Order: sequence, then structure tokens, then C-alpha cells
Amino acid sequence: MSEAAIRIGVVGLGSVFYGPYMAMIERLATAGRARVTAVYDVDEGKRRAAGQRLGVDPGLTSPEAVLESDDVDVVLVLTSMPAHGSLASAALRAGKHVLVEKPMATSLEEAAALMELAAASPGHLICAPHILLSPTFRAVSAHVENGDIGQLLLARARYGWSGPDWSRWFYERGGGALFDLGVYNVTSLCGLFGPARRVTAMAGVAIPERVVEGETVRVQAEDNAHVLIDFGDARFASVTTGFTMQKYRSPAIELYGSGGVLQMLGDDWAPEGYELWRNSAGSWELFPESDPGWQWTEGLRHLVDCIETGREPVTRPEHAYHALEIMLAAQAAAADGRAREIASDFPRADLAALADVTDGHRVHDPRSALI
Amino acid sequence: MSEAAIRIGVVGLGSVFYGPYMAMIERLATAGRARVTAVYDVDEGKRRAAGQRLGVDPGLTSPEAVLESDDVDVVLVLTSMPAHGSLASAALRAGKHVLVEKPMATSLEEAAALMELAAASPGHLICAPHILLSPTFRAVSAHVENGDIGQLLLARARYGWSGPDWSRWFYERGGGALFDLGVYNVTSLCGLFGPARRVTAMAGVAIPERVVEGETVRVQAEDNAHVLIDFGDARFASVTTGFTMQKYRSPAIELYGSGGVLQMLGDDWAPEGYELWRNSAGSWELFPESDPGWQWTEGLRHLVDCIETGREPVTRPEHAYHALEIMLAAQAAAADGRAREIASDFPRADLAALADVTDGHRVHDPRSALI
Amino acid sequence: MSEAAIRIGVVGLGSVFYGPYMAMIERLATAGRARVTAVYDVDEGKRRAAGQRLGVDPGLTSPEAVLESDDVDVVLVLTSMPAHGSLASAALRAGKHVLVEKPMATSLEEAAALMELAAASPGHLICAPHILLSPTFRAVSAHVENGDIGQLLLARARYGWSGPDWSRWFYERGGGALFDLGVYNVTSLCGLFGPARRVTAMAGVAIPERVVEGETVRVQAEDNAHVLIDFGDARFASVTTGFTMQKYRSPAIELYGSGGVLQMLGDDWAPEGYELWRNSAGSWELFPESDPGWQWTEGLRHLVDCIETGREPVTRPEHAYHALEIMLAAQAAAADGRAREIASDFPRADLAALADVTDGHRVHDPRSALI
Amino acid sequence: MSEAAIRIGVVGLGSVFYGPYMAMIERLATAGRARVTAVYDVDEGKRRAAGQRLGVDPGLTSPEAVLESDDVDVVLVLTSMPAHGSLASAALRAGKHVLVEKPMATSLEEAAALMELAAASPGHLICAPHILLSPTFRAVSAHVENGDIGQLLLARARYGWSGPDWSRWFYERGGGALFDLGVYNVTSLCGLFGPARRVTAMAGVAIPERVVEGETVRVQAEDNAHVLIDFGDARFASVTTGFTMQKYRSPAIELYGSGGVLQMLGDDWAPEGYELWRNSAGSWELFPESDPGWQWTEGLRHLVDCIETGREPVTRPEHAYHALEIMLAAQAAAADGRAREIASDFPRADLAALADVTDGHRVHDPRSALI
Repeated sequence: MSEAAIRIGVVGLGSVFYGPYMAMIERLATAGRARVTAVYDVDEGKRRAAGQRLGVDPGLTSPEAVLESDDVDVVLVLTSMPAHGSLASAALRAGKHVLVEKPMATSLEEAAALMELAAASPGHLICAPHILLSPTFRAVSAHVENGDIGQLLLARARYGWSGPDWSRWFYERGGGALFDLGVYNVTSLCGLFGPARRVTAMAGVAIPERVVEGETVRVQAEDNAHVLIDFGDARFASVTTGFTMQKYRSPAIELYGSGGVLQMLGDDWAPEGYELWRNSAGSWELFPESDPGWQWTEGLRHLVDCIETGREPVTRPEHAYHALEIMLAAQAAAADGRAREIASDFPRADLAALADVTDGHRVHDPRSALI
Repeated sequence: MSEAAIRIGVVGLGSVFYGPYMAMIERLATAGRARVTAVYDVDEGKRRAAGQRLGVDPGLTSPEAVLESDDVDVVLVLTSMPAHGSLASAALRAGKHVLVEKPMATSLEEAAALMELAAASPGHLICAPHILLSPTFRAVSAHVENGDIGQLLLARARYGWSGPDWSRWFYERGGGALFDLGVYNVTSLCGLFGPARRVTAMAGVAIPERVVEGETVRVQAEDNAHVLIDFGDARFASVTTGFTMQKYRSPAIELYGSGGVLQMLGDDWAPEGYELWRNSAGSWELFPESDPGWQWTEGLRHLVDCIETGREPVTRPEHAYHALEIMLAAQAAAADGRAREIASDFPRADLAALADVTDGHRVHDPRSALI
Repeated sequence: MSEAAIRIGVVGLGSVFYGPYMAMIERLATAGRARVTAVYDVDEGKRRAAGQRLGVDPGLTSPEAVLESDDVDVVLVLTSMPAHGSLASAALRAGKHVLVEKPMATSLEEAAALMELAAASPGHLICAPHILLSPTFRAVSAHVENGDIGQLLLARARYGWSGPDWSRWFYERGGGALFDLGVYNVTSLCGLFGPARRVTAMAGVAIPERVVEGETVRVQAEDNAHVLIDFGDARFASVTTGFTMQKYRSPAIELYGSGGVLQMLGDDWAPEGYELWRNSAGSWELFPESDPGWQWTEGLRHLVDCIETGREPVTRPEHAYHALEIMLAAQAAAADGRAREIASDFPRADLAALADVTDGHRVHDPRSALI
Repeated sequence: MSEAAIRIGVVGLGSVFYGPYMAMIERLATAGRARVTAVYDVDEGKRRAAGQRLGVDPGLTSPEAVLESDDVDVVLVLTSMPAHGSLASAALRAGKHVLVEKPMATSLEEAAALMELAAASPGHLICAPHILLSPTFRAVSAHVENGDIGQLLLARARYGWSGPDWSRWFYERGGGALFDLGVYNVTSLCGLFGPARRVTAMAGVAIPERVVEGETVRVQAEDNAHVLIDFGDARFASVTTGFTMQKYRSPAIELYGSGGVLQMLGDDWAPEGYELWRNSAGSWELFPESDPGWQWTEGLRHLVDCIETGREPVTRPEHAYHALEIMLAAQAAAADGRAREIASDFPRADLAALADVTDGHRVHDPRSALI
């Protein structure tokens, strides 16, 4: 391991750390670019297990011990949602670079404060989800930018599944399908349309009771929702999400333009290529997934890239803030039936700066390539 | 032609008459079951052409001359929308059976009066669209009724295209994508979920100018819309429609249940089979279209069946009224951002009464069979 | 009906006449371009029925009475296979234009004689199948000609189904899957690759007994076969056919070139569009079927076109002869396990002469358009 | 690492070792079940690299030093093809368990001797490919065994790509598409139909020159082929293979039975689920891939399982021998146009002994699960 490797401190050692972020860290570690130097979790057993597995001190007994460690360059905030905002703020204040899982905070006030702090701090702030970084999203975005489907007028997006059976908080107040699932579609759609102007929604609890880790749970956060987003000039998108979708066979995102249609397949966080209809071509062009092993923890690699090269991250906290405002507005609109205006704005990500190339017919054994 | 053949009077001889209804009438005529005995259109040229083609008197100079003719059993109301309600009413008052194209009327008041009249009159009233009658819709509906996907919780539906270039009224006040296109999805979804309780929507004019019959037209009715429908118990559906969808590659209707998913392919009025996921089976079951030549004018055949057999039509004016209330509510909600309650109700259609059988692997040359 | 309408005499009034050819004749008749003036079938009942339906004399008691009638310009030979060659010859000798269903003859000698006669006679000879004429085949062929997939190297084709239950001859000596079904793939592949050089095959009876029209039949002609065709320069194609294929979900024809892949969907005689992969594009381009109502009896319209315009037919008897040689060689190779050389040649059809245009996103209601 | 871990010696450290087998070994090592204890390659650089990476002695200077090491339980034979037979034999003689990559030998004589030796030796002999072990193949095989598609009558299989640009031997005598690619389809088809009786083929060099590692190579082994296999009772299969297939969008294997159709998607060695048509159901049932990360080196895990449990391997050398006989017969038939009888037989693998369960709608993040 190079001495120059970027030192990562992890706060929160649950299932989001193992395996998704862990897998990404292992790749970076194999390349000598990063290593874990400090870990913390409220659960002592998890601290000890991570210490043994990663060869680090299992004895840190507070998140601050990680955030403030001299041996840490980057802090990963992977705790439960309510702690995201305060931990990310503390890490920025300690001069660290920060990657925070979604949502960046649970209130707009806290999120706004976090963004101000990021602007004033030396460290970068990267907010999940990192889905704008996938090669497939970038290709889709480039088609939209190039006008390949004309002007973007209408869209549908969906992401859902039958729901987790492993953690109560998904179904408790503060959890819910919008924050856990809907955030992906909302983030993608804003990445493609630009800032939203207005939101309305229907959302509720369709399955009142669930079994989680063997116990029956009374569901208190929405598990079933449609959100409508107005992007101005009569351009609209819908987001369908829920722990009520057993399976699907439909595009993740459908983009209807004045001269064509563009569809992203798979899920925002696990794209399976895309399909392009252009009236001028008169055919559907199916682009196979160029990177079948792409991981949704890519934001960490991007952060490491930026630290190494001194460049600014292309994904911005303002985008995450905007998505948060939309989701809170959707919940409010679902409660009283009234559409809400959206106040915030965000700069468009310069995804072209990340461009790379693939050659579809030469991909031969992606499964082995994953290893 | 049998003397017993049912005598049809047609009011409105435009593109909806030629070829869709005409094709259905020709089939019925070949079987000796129906014949056209009277026609009227405001356009004298169309009257004369139809008279020559159908061998009937081209000299009737008012719709009343058709509605009140002693030589007419069934009146087809295929005029422009604003005249639907009054012509259908007049025909019922004259003791005729009536088939009226969508919408049955352009205001709820007029529609309610029409339904009252139908209840008190000897003639049947059949309101388009007739999509509940397709073998595919009936199969989908039967799966839902049987609980094959558990409880129906969430749905998406879509129907749109790039829009007609042949008649200004589609883009004028009183036209619009909801009445022309959205009505199909709304009708189907209510057929599957039952009566709606609440509606909200976003709708507007995304393409302000169009070329219609060579002339530039200023668009005044919505050409781009999402509608959300609340069916109670936190069960929601979305309808996406517009003259803004160049092409699609997605299911017409997606039905998400607590134990599976059901997707109707093609369009409500031109189904292409359906797909069923059941958690208990762990597979997608793809049912090919059982009747690739099914015509959306099937309501006429159903009306003829009912007259011949003395049975009541299975599709009901109350359903069309309910769809109308939803679309008017959607337009109102789109205008001010407030969800609307839906007051009306309708009885579920007894589609099982229409059941028949197909054997998929024996279908060999459907194109020749169409003839 | 115009007096100038081309006069058609039909020999053989079975299921191939009703409805496929009949449907085509009705379209031509509606356009005033053709009409049936004479009919013959060995079955007197069929003669009488056709006479009544078509308004022609049901009293002709020999095929010659049709072939030699002064009131006939074109003879359709739609009888059982063994009679094809002699009837087509007689009609040519009588100075008529001839359309003969597949196969043009049942021996190479008879077929060769027929071709010589055609060359020396004033009438055109059009041999089924007419599949090169479909817009989709022509588009596929144009891509190959343009080099869009580089050099054509390898192909697979398939056509089969569970088999007819309506006529014993399919399962008797002289029938079989190759002549009834395989002929389509063979014709298409030669249309794309050019003349074949060598053939081998495996073929046999996989289902020894069938029920046909309620009676158990002992199967004597192959119902299960693979044919391999060598087109020279190590370029090979396979044809898979049988009354042993209950259903499929695979392309009709797969064409592998040095720079891409081209796939025709549906069946040769009922195309459902095509798919194009070009390495240079890195995407699958899906072209929807441009003419969903295209009928495999198109050869008749083409013959009428040629008579009206004085042009030569683009499809040639030499091509049908070549396909016949291949099928007979395949049967011989299947019998003794030895590959056979193919001696005949044929000129490439000038399909570009037939070009026309479609605009995929404007197709809206093809089912009604079919009528 | 447990002391009980099975000790693996690797002969041949090329691209087949890194990453596919290496990835499998890492999984086994993480579970404490196996570890590499000896390595050899003719290339000293590769020996040294492997020694460093795996922490083993890089100083072994002959394959025998691995085969005969007291510190080795299992020998992986991953060298170039011509050495497979002799190295596998030597390892068996030394009392080791052996996994040998395809082909087990390059002549039937050598292969027969190897099998005799295996029968007489204490060690297991596992021959690649290991594709019968994939959950998807096993599910497909179980459907066939259960008669879900009736009697299996006809099949097509395909596997090809644009070809490697990294090693000359693929294109030299002894290489070729049949041994490198065709072997998978042949192995699968025999696994489903049982022993073959007869073979014919067309094969040749369609692309005479290639660029490999920057140099132009004259191709001497077939790069383009169709093979026909007769399984008796007029049941036939075709195999299409080549370095001439740029891409595909078709099933890997199509199985046509008297009552249905079964299609395996993806490739034999990287399945993507399967599709089942049963006439009795009247639908296509699509089974998503149950194990998207399944690796084609599974044979190694199976061997470790067998050593640990004392059970016999379910995949048998006789099957690999039979596939070898078929491929040699295909090459002979391609050369002179005469079908060849197949003499060998093999016992059916008892795949049911490996059964396990998946629950499709619960698979949520397979990419992270891969890690």
C-alpha cells in the first residue's frame, strides 16, 4: 500500500458499508489509492469485526474519534438517516473531505447549513446517490444535451421493489419509499430536465403491516407513491415508487422529446443500457450496458479522483438539496392535495468532463471482469 | 341480407366511421346481422358518397331524419364531440338503441341527463370506448379478480403519440389529449380498480404551435399530461398521455399487486397480449395476443348481440360518466394545483359473461385471418 | 369494375385461394385493377361455391377450360403440388401469364422445362413464395448490399410450427416440412447470399403419427429437419424447419457479417421488422415492421403491376428452380449422409426497383388500416 | 486459513487462471476451504508474479514439481491444449485430484487413456466445461426431464463472438472455433438429449487474416461452422459457432419438444435465465437468471465439495470424451462432406443431487452481492 494512499474513516458499519462501499474500497486499495484507517459504529460487535477485517483499531468509541483523527482524509457517513447532517457537518468542520449517504440531511434547514459549511470548508462534500456518474446515465444525458430527441417534454420514472425485511426504520416515520427509493428517480430526472418548479403527489400506506426480522411491524411511512414534477413550460415528469412493486419489466426512465424517445433500462443505480428512438432514424437503437459491473458507490472513487487531481467534484450538494426539497414537497402535497412550489436551484453537472469510451462488441466475459 | 338484420342509422360520416366502424358493419353485414339504412353528415359530399357506397338514400338533410326514421333500430353517434350528448338523447327519446362515441357528453350535467334518459328508455345506450370488451382486457381483468397478483395496489398507464395532423379540433378548446387519448387509460384503470375517489394532475401545452392540414395552428388544449388517481386505501394509479410521445416501448398498463405484477402490452384499444409475474411462480408469463385483429369498434357488435339475444350490455354508461368526471377533475386540478374528490360510482362490468377460448400455439396466419 | 381490369382464372379453390389470394384479389378488384373470370377445382362443390361468391360460371369442368379461356389473362395455379408443373406449362403454352404456388414443379426436370417454356412464351411466370417482395425483406437486403454488416459470413434461419391438422398430403410422400416450410428460408437466404454451392442435411420423421381431420395418419414425409448450405468462401447458413416447433421467440433469420449482425423478425412470409447491429454504431437498431398488413400473396399484385406497366417481374423462376434444387439435394443428403453440390445459378433480383418509404412514428392504427 | 484447506497446485498461469479460476480460488480461500500451494508456468515471469501474489514458492521449474508435490491435493491443468492430456495423466498417476481445462486431450486415444487412468486412480478427474453445474442449466435440464415440453425433438444452439485478439493459437492448427467455442453447445446439448449417434458439419475459414497482438496472422483453423447432431429417432440439433459473430440477440439454446419450447438465454457459460412455452399453459414463462454472478469455473468448487464430502462428482469425464468425439467427427465431416457415426456413450449426470432454491422477486442488488 502506497503511503500516499488516501486515508478513509468510516462512520456506520452496517449493510451499506458491507458490501457496496467495502467493494469499492477494496478496488481502490488494490490500486494503492486508498485505505481504511479508522472506523466507528454504535454497535461494539461491528466495530470489532471491522477492526479485524480491515486491520484497524477497533477501540474508537465515538464518531468524533473518526471525524477528528489526524489519520483520516475522507469521512464516509453511512449511519442511519437522522445523524447524516450533523456528522457530515462535524467532519467538514474538522477539515475532512466528506461523502454522505442519502439523504444529506432530514430537514431543509439542516441541509442548507451543511451546504454553507461545505462552501466555506477546504474539504469536498459528495452527497449520494452517485447515479449521475454511471456511464449509462452520462450517455443518456449527452443524448438529451445534444438534442437527439429534440426538446425534452415528458417523462416517467419508476423504482420500487417488494421492500426490505431487515430493518424497521424503512417503515417508520422518517423512513419511507420516497427517501429510500424515490430519491434516485428524482435525482436523475432533475439531472436531465434541470431544476423543478412545482410538485404534487399521492402517497400512503398500502400494506399496513409487514414482517421485519421475524416481527410484525405497523407501517408508518409511505410505501406507495406517485410524484408529479413540473419543470416549467408544461414539461412534466412522474415518479412511481413503493415497497409495493414485486418485479418489473419496463424502463427505469422514459424520456419523451419533441423528436424522439430515450429510455434507460435497469435501475438508476444499476443501469442496463438504454434505448433511443429518433424520428429521423425511424428505429429504436438499443445500447447494451457498457459497464455491467458499475457500482453505485462510484461517488467514492470520484471523490478520490478529485483529491488526487485537485479537481472539483462534478456532482454537487446543491443537486442533493434540490432533490430533498422535492421529496419533502411531495410528502406535503400528498398530505393535503395541494401542489407545492420548489424554491431551490442547482447548477448542471459537467458530466462531459468524465467521458470515456467502450466498444460494445468486444465485451466478452463481464462476469470474470468483475472480479 | 336477412330481413331480420338490425338496421343502423349513422350520424357523422368522418374518419371514425370510415374505416373502423365501417369495417365492423361490413363484418356484421356479411353475417346477415346488420345493415346501414340511413346516414347523415353536415357535409353534403359525405352524405352523397356514403349513400352511393352503402346503397342508401343520400337525401336526408338533418340528423333527426336518421334518429326518427322508422327504418332504423340503432343509431351510431359519430359526430364532433359537442353534439354527442344531444343527439344521443334525441335518439333514445325516439326509442332507438344508441352507440355514442367518446365522450358521451362534454359536461357532467348533460351526461347525467343522458344516463337518466337511458334508464327510462327502451333502447340500450352503449358508450365508447369499448376497450373492456377486448379478449386481452378481459383476461387481465380476470387475473386481477382471481387475485393472481394479490391485492391491486399501484398502477401506471400510458397512451400517446405524436398527434394528428388532420383536424384542428384536437388542439382547440374542448379537444385535448385527455379527452382524445387519456380516456382509454382512465376507463381501463377504473375497470380494474373500481371507482376512483380523488384525482390530481399536471397538464399543459408543451408544443404551442402545430401544423394541421398544412396550416399552423395555435394549440389551446392540453397536449401533455400526467393524471394521478386515488382509488382509496392508498391505492394509486398514474395516467401519462400527450401528443408529445413519438413512440414507445413500454407496457400500456402496469398493475402492481401485493403478490405479483400484470402488464398489458400494445394499447388499450389495440392490445398486444399481456405479461404476468406471480411471486409464487417466480417467472414472467407472457401471453401472446389471442386476437391480433380485434377492433376497437367491438361495442357495435356487442350492441347487436344484446339486441339479438335480449341481454343487457355488460358495459355501462355509468362507467363512461365516471371517466368523464375524472377527466374534468383532472383538468381542474391541473389548472389550480388542487386535488379533486370524485363523487360518482359505477357497477363493475360482468366481463365473465363474455368468456371464450383461444389456443396460442395454433394461431398460424393471423394476417390472412383478418380478411 | 373497369373493362381494362386484368382477368384472372383460378385453378385450385382450396384454403390457399380462400382467404390469402382471395383477399389480394379483392383489393385489386376494389381498385378496378383485376377480377376473377374463370374458376376450376376438382371438387364440384367448391366450383359452385366460388361461382356464386365471385359471380362467374361454375360450369367449367376441366382445368384446361380455364387455362385456354379467351376471357383469362392470368392463371393462378393453386392446386395440389404434383399438378403445378404441368398446369403452369399448359397455361404458358396458351399464352397466359402464370402465377404458380410453391413448388413450381416436383422434379428438377419438370421445373427446367417450365423455365424454358417461360423464356420462350409471351406470358410472365411468377413462382411463389413471393417473400422477396416484402418491404422488410427488401430493407434487409439493402443493408446487406450496402455492406452495413460488412461481408456476410454466417446465417441461421428457422420456420416451423406444430403442423396442419387439415390435410393429409402434408405428411405423405411428396409433402413434408422442407417443401411446405423450409422453402421460405431457403429462398430468403439465397436472395441474400446469392447462389448456393453445396448442401447437406439431417431430416426425418420425429412424430410418427398425427391426427388429421379426426383420423390418425402415419407420417411418411420429414417433419423435422436441419439443412446446411454452403455459399462458397466458407460462408454457411443453416435452415431449421419442422412440424415440431410449437412456438418460437427467436429471429426468423440471423445474418452474421464481418462488421455487424442483421436479424429479420416474425417469419419470412409475415415479417415483424428487423434488427441491425453495426460494430461502428455500437447499438442494436430496431426497425419496427413498416407494413404490418403485408400479405404473402403480394406476387399477384406484382404480376398485375408488371402487366399494367410492361415491366419484367423482379422475382425470377430461376430463383425458384435453385431453391427446388437445394431442397431435393437436402433430402438426398439426409438420406445417405453425403453433402451434394448445387449446379444451378440465378440472377439477383433487382429489389431496389421496388423501393418505397415509410415513417415509423406516424403509424397509428394499423389494424383499421388493414381493412 | 484452516489447516484442513484443500491444497491446490496450478499448472499454467495465463489468462484462464487470472481472473476466472483465481476469482473462484479467492472465494474458496475466504471460506477457508482451499489455498494455492504450488504453481508452475513455462514463463518465468508468470511464475514469479504468481508466487508473489499468492505467497508461494516461485522456484518450481517443471510441471512435475507441482504434480508430484506432497503439498498438493488438487492439480489444475490450465496450460495450452496439447499438454492437457499428458499433464492430467501424470497428476492422476501421482495420486492427485485433477481439474483439466477443455479439451481433456487433443486425440481420442489420449482421452481414452486418461479416462481409464481416472477409473483406476484414487483421485477425481473433472473436465471442463463445467456448464452443466449452473443453476440455470440444471433448471432447464429438470424441465426436460419432467417432460414439461413433451419429448425433445429438435434444437438449435449458438455461441460465437468476434474472436480473441490476444493469442495466435486460437487461429492455428489445433485451435479453432469448434474446440474453443463449439464445445460448450455440444456439451450442453448432449447433457439434454443424451448421447449422439451421428454428426455432420460445414466449417471453414471465413476471415483468412486477423490481427493478433498487433501482428497479422494467417488463419488456419476453422473460424466459422455449423454442426448437425443426430440423437436418434429423428431428433436433431444444430450448433452454430464462429469467430464471425459480432453480437447476438437470440437464445443460446432453443429446445423444441412435442408439447412446448424451452430456451436458455445468455451463453452456456454465462446464462441469463430461460424461457418456457408449454402448449398446456399457452404462455411464455420467463425465468430471470437466478444466479447472475455464477462463474464458469464452478467445476473447481464442485471438486472441492466432492473432496470434502467424499461424494463422487456429478459431471463425468465420459461426457467430455463424447463431446471430443463429436467435435473431431464434425471436423472430419466438414472436410469431406460425409456424416460420421459416433461410437461413445456417457452416463447422464445426476444434476438433481445439486438442487437449491431461489426466490426471484427478492433478488435486489446482485452487483453488490457479487463481491
